[in-house]
This record gives sequence, structure tokens and C-alpha cells, in this order.
Amino acid sequence: MDILVSEVGPRDGLQNVKRTMPTAAKKAWIDALVAAGVREIEVGSFVPAKLIPQLADTAEIVAHARGHEGLTVAVLVPNRRGAADAIAAGAHKLTLPLSVSETHSLANLRKTHAQVLEEVHAITALLAALPQAERPHFEGSLSTVFGCTLEGAIPDATVLRLASELMAAGCDEVGLSDTTGYATPGEVTRLVRMVRGEVGEAAVTGLHLHNTRGLGLANVLAGLEAGITTFDASIGGLGGCPFAPGASGNIVTEDLVFMLEAMGCRTGIDIARLQDSRRIVAEALPGEPLYGFIPDAGLPKGWAPAAPSPETVRTFA
Amino acid sequence: MDILVSEVGPRDGLQNVKRTMPTAAKKAWIDALVAAGVREIEVGSFVPAKLIPQLADTAEIVAHARGHEGLTVAVLVPNRRGAADAIAAGAHKLTLPLSVSETHSLANLRKTHAQVLEEVHAITALLAALPQAERPHFEGSLSTVFGCTLEGAIPDATVLRLASELMAAGCDEVGLSDTTGYATPGEVTRLVRMVRGEVGEAAVTGLHLHNTRGLGLANVLAGLEAGITTFDASIGGLGGCPFAPGASGNIVTEDLVFMLEAMGCRTGIDIARLQDSRRIVAEALPGEPLYGFIPDAGLPKGWAPAAPSPETVRTFA
Repeated sequence: MDILVSEVGPRDGLQNVKRTMPTAAKKAWIDALVAAGVREIEVGSFVPAKLIPQLADTAEIVAHARGHEGLTVAVLVPNRRGAADAIAAGAHKLTLPLSVSETHSLANLRKTHAQVLEEVHAITALLAALPQAERPHFEGSLSTVFGCTLEGAIPDATVLRLASELMAAGCDEVGLSDTTGYATPGEVTRLVRMVRGEVGEAAVTGLHLHNTRGLGLANVLAGLEAGITTFDASIGGLGGCPFAPGASGNIVTEDLVFMLEAMGCRTGIDIARLQDSRRIVAEALPGEPLYGFIPDAGLPKGWAPAAPSPETVRTFA
Repeated sequence: MDILVSEVGPRDGLQNVKRTMPTAAKKAWIDALVAAGVREIEVGSFVPAKLIPQLADTAEIVAHARGHEGLTVAVLVPNRRGAADAIAAGAHKLTLPLSVSETHSLANLRKTHAQVLEEVHAITALLAALPQAERPHFEGSLSTVFGCTLEGAIPDATVLRLASELMAAGCDEVGLSDTTGYATPGEVTRLVRMVRGEVGEAAVTGLHLHNTRGLGLANVLAGLEAGITTFDASIGGLGGCPFAPGASGNIVTEDLVFMLEAMGCRTGIDIARLQDSRRIVAEALPGEPLYGFIPDAGLPKGWAPAAPSPETVRTFA
């Protein structure tokens, strides 16, 4: 089974560190990721530079990343203006976050659910005006979907309504995002099945999970079993969410790839070559903590990726 | 579904720290674990005090722990002499490690497989001489079963032969132990099923997993799905294996209980009350690193254990 590991470090990671990574280092990081076999990278976010100065060079980074044939160049867009910039820059995939917690939505994007959905409609109108071949993939990402540090649990009905509204507004898919690190394996299974039941299996393929409470990889396993095929992660676990107090830590790309490859899931990524990415991040962000067990403990003696087997597919799909 | 979390910190944890915890602190730790709802504790090891001076007071600790009604007082025994001491002290459960890697067995116990099995036979003879009501439970634990830092992968045939020989020698059950932190979810599923196929389901109920490569809780999830109902863990992840270079870190009890309770698996353990144990360990072992995500990040807002449901049982049993 092929699994897509989507590296979000250059966006989610860099957005949440104080220091700004030099543009040249970002390009070198992306080049190293591609050299290791990474096939999708969220390279930045089209937000006003005064809000997130660390990502002010996103258009230049998109242009650079597009030079890698076969790479899906993804960006975050908070609104129609960001989407227009992303389209102009040539991004292949746009992700717009819609926090199912309206309190969090107001804190994060300063918008109500209705106002975010207006932006989604405006974006799909922009996309519809493009020739089909140039139209980027458009994902509506349900953030705080496993619970919110401000509101706690969010009613299932709210999640289902917003998933439906995103698809009705013209999104290509709905992502589920554990912004706050509240997800647990049972809830991952339940929510994936529930949202798929509402909008269709093909519309729910990706999870953005955090490792805030140490369950990141267990949640990936639950996601695999529910049929998810795309997982976000970042080198060294860089990143988190500044508006969700106490929430920090994406899933570590190095550890995720190890688990997947050990299970016979094909990521196309060479774990050893991910070290180059890590070194670039460490050098460009001195003092920034980088996490990960595989980088510390190393691979098991004599380890090799497991061969894909019918058993793996039966158990984990 | 009820799951037994077996706390191994007082044995596996303390064996692997340089400082010796005072006997009074060990007793206070055990008392705090019981107060939090822990139902099984590996309280020590009957090995020569000159080898592991940190556990020289094990007989006194067993006597103290036996004062807690309903608690299963478990100990590690490397040989017949240790077993005799454990029986004399009144331990409820004896675990004898048999490393499936003979190289590791020689390094750890200075014994070949055949020599370890001789000890097992001698122990079952000791047990057979006891009245049934006083006979402790006897587990043979296959260590390095997911691979060895010295030998790498161990052939399935060796694992199966040793599991059979342990049962034939009179063990009540066979445990699987990821001494080196090499386990991955697919391998957990595969090995549990394979060994159960050899010696019977009832004979394989427990896993001792490490978090060396960050997969500890994902491996627990795989174990649950394969029908395992007992998981070892230690407060703060204290412990590891001194003869497996680079391998360190048991599964953190606090994080394990969080995951299990969130999934509707009943452990009987109150997560908040585990903090008392952690404080005792931190005070008695100043400077010793304690791990865990839940202790750092806290429980999710409004969190409560999930109600057990048929869905949970169907998915994870």
C-alpha cells in the first residue's frame, strides 16, 4: 500500500518558530526533502507578511519548489486573497483551515464559520475560472476536529455539517486536523468513518495529527486502519499551533516514515537521506528543539523496509 | 474491555538507574501506585545484591507490597536460586527472562538457551512442591523477541521453539518482550499471532514494550488488536536494558493509561493520582530524567475516560 507523507515543516514548522529561516535555507531544505523521496510539501502560507513574517517569501518558495518535477507544492490559504496569491504563484494544492470550534476560528482567523465558508465559495469561484489543467487541488481542513483547548469537545453534528458545507462549496476533499493534540486512536477511527459516511470515502483521505500527548503514531495506525492514505508530518516535529495553548509538536517525519516502511507501507522516502533535511533545519534555526526517536536511537540493526504483503493490506487498510 | 497495566518501574526502572532508591521511598511509591488503582507491580528482582545493588531490598519490598489486598506482587528471577528466594518472600508472580538471542542471553544472564531452560525446569519443580494455593504464577518472558542489538532479527523458528519449550517446562504463560525497542506494529501483530498459534491464545496475554523508537503506544494498539490484555509500563518511562546499547525507555504509564482509557479500555487507574507516584520518584531520584507527554501537556479540556462500547471491543480485541 502506498502512503503519502506530506511534509508540513516549511509551513507549519516555520510559522511557529520565532526566528525566520533564510529563503536560501528553505530552498535547500525542500531540495533535500525531494532528494529523500518526499512527494508533497506544504511550502508556505499566503498570509499578510505582517502577521507571519517567517513566511513572507512563500511566492518565491513556491516558484522554487515547482522546479522539482513530480513534487506536489502545497500551501495554506486563510482566505480568497491568499488563494489568489497562491494561484498566481502556481501552487498545486491549496488548504484552507476551517476550525470546527468557532471560538478557535475567531481566535485564529478572526472569522465565524459562515465567514470562512464565504471565503471557500469565493475561492472555488476563482478556481472554476481557471482552465482545468491549471486548477490546483483544494482541500478544506477541519481543524480542532478532535477537540479544542478553548471549547473542549465539538458536537459531531457541527463536524458533519461543516464537512458537508465544505464539499457543497466545491472543495475537492475534507481533511481532519488534530490542531490541539487531543486525538486518540478510537476517536480517529470513529471520526474518519463518520465524516466519510457523510461526504464519501474519496473525500476524506488525509490526517494532520500532532504528537502533543504522545499518541501521534498510534493515531496514524488507527488512521491507516480506517483507510487514510495521507499523513502530515514535519522534520524534527517542528511546529504546532500558536493559538492552542500547550499544543505543540507535529508528528516527526523521520519516525513516521520508519513506522510506515516497517509495516510494508511504501512512502518512497529514504529515512537515512532525511538526515540532510534535519541538518539544514538545525543549522538554519540554531537552538530550536528538534524531536524524534529514530534520529536519536537509529534504525534497528540489520533493518530494512518490510516487503508489502497481503497481510499488511488486510490488517491496515 | 479490562486491560491490566503492569507497573515495572520499581524493578525495570530502578535496575537501570545508578542511584539506589531508599527502601522507604520504594514503599511509598508502591503505596501511591496502589492508591491510583494499579493492580500489578513488578516490585524487584531476586538477583545477587552485588550485581544489582539497587534491588537488594526486594524481599522487604515484596513483604510490604503483599500488605495491599488485591495487588499482584511480581518479581523477576534469573534462575532457580532467585525463584527460591521469591517463593520464600511470598511473591505472587515470577517472571524469568529467556532471551531468544543467545548472544544477548550470554551477555545478560551468562547462560545458553539450554542452561536457561534447565533453570526453568528446576523452578517448575520447586513450584510443583508447593500447595496449589501458594503457588505463584510463573511466566517465561521471551526477551529480544523483536530483534537484538547484537544479532539483529531472530529466526521465527527459534522464537517458536523456545516458546514451546518454556510451556513444556511448565511455565503458565509466555510473555513477549521488546528489550531493544525494535518492535513495529506489523511485527507485534505477526509475532503475537504466531506465538499464540504455537502455544495457545491463553498462554500469550502480555507484552513488554519499549518506546526507544517512539512506537511504544502504536505497538500497544497493535497488541490490543491481536488480543493482548496486559501491558508493562513504568512511571516516567524509567528503565531500559543495560545490555542493549542505545535501548532505553519503557512505555510511560501515564501516557499508556491515557490512551487506553480514552479508547474505552478499563485499567482501573486514575491518571491524576499517578502524579503522586511521579513526584515520589522525582524526589527520590533527583536529576533522573522522567518522560511522558501527559505529565507535560495535561489531559485534554473536559476529558473523561470513554465509556466501554461494543465498538471498542470489536475494533480493539
